[in-house]
Amino acid sequence: MRVMGVDPGLTRAGFAIVDQTAGKLRAVEFGTVRGGSAEIPEQLAALRSRLAEAIREHRPEAMAVERLFVTRNQRTAIRVGQASGIALLAAAEAGIPVTEYGPLQVKQAVVGVGNASKDQVSFMVQRLLNLSEAPDTADAADALALAICHLHSYRLTARAAGGAR
Amino acid sequence: MRVMGVDPGLTRAGFAIVDQTAGKLRAVEFGTVRGGSAEIPEQLAALRSRLAEAIREHRPEAMAVERLFVTRNQRTAIRVGQASGIALLAAAEAGIPVTEYGPLQVKQAVVGVGNASKDQVSFMVQRLLNLSEAPDTADAADALALAICHLHSYRLTARAAGGAR
Repeated sequence: MRVMGVDPGLTRAGFAIVDQTAGKLRAVEFGTVRGGSAEIPEQLAALRSRLAEAIREHRPEAMAVERLFVTRNQRTAIRVGQASGIALLAAAEAGIPVTEYGPLQVKQAVVGVGNASKDQVSFMVQRLLNLSEAPDTADAADALALAICHLHSYRLTARAAGGAR
Repeated sequence: MRVMGVDPGLTRAGFAIVDQTAGKLRAVEFGTVRGGSAEIPEQLAALRSRLAEAIREHRPEAMAVERLFVTRNQRTAIRVGQASGIALLAAAEAGIPVTEYGPLQVKQAVVGVGNASKDQVSFMVQRLLNLSEAPDTADAADALALAICHLHSYRLTARAAGGAR
């Protein structure tokens, strides 16, 4: 099973492709898409282009995207909403099913507690995937964590249903 | 000058193409994109596909999109943010400049007062464009109003700058 994780954002978005074979997790690719100083429409186009490229190259079977939550800053919520729309679009256009996970679910799946810090998430992601060093941004770490979270829930669901996949 | 107006939304989005030649406004095309009962990623893909089609067919020189505002319902804000991201993406991918206008600016431009009702906007849009009947949805009327708003501001800006365009 190969899963793509996306932590959407305009100035910085994280993406990751993670494999699970015989219970073993492996990071195929991960990185950070930076919007730089471009205008918002161009940042969105760059994000779509990078996500579509990773999907074409690695052909993930599913996508896990961070579910957006109420924030104090409405302006931020709208901009992150725009970026998350691009991730959902990239999945739909590639015919990949998408699942949204909240931050608590992701932290619970990776660290075991819902109130884990960004550093803890990054540390556990590095350990679970046996990376030689921590991901360079919290966004890339979150994208890896999202993919791992989906692989965990998927396995549990398949088990509960008596599935052998 | 030919302008595309987009009022983004997931269950319903409005789009419109409006021409202005020698001060005369003309609606080239307008309509409503309905998300129906599809999943959100598929609704976003359908919206992108319809907007891209209208851009290819009518080649607008600019796009005007509704600027999102603080709403009481955060969930709605995020979903509308996702749809507006698709509109901005469609513009960027076609190389068209985008301007965002708030509801007050649009109502001011079309009705003359910022607190106009949806019915007033629809009525004035019908009158300004000499349509035989009112647009079938408030979303299509808003998209037409956005395009008119942009044409007005554009003309004023060009005039202020002494431009002859």
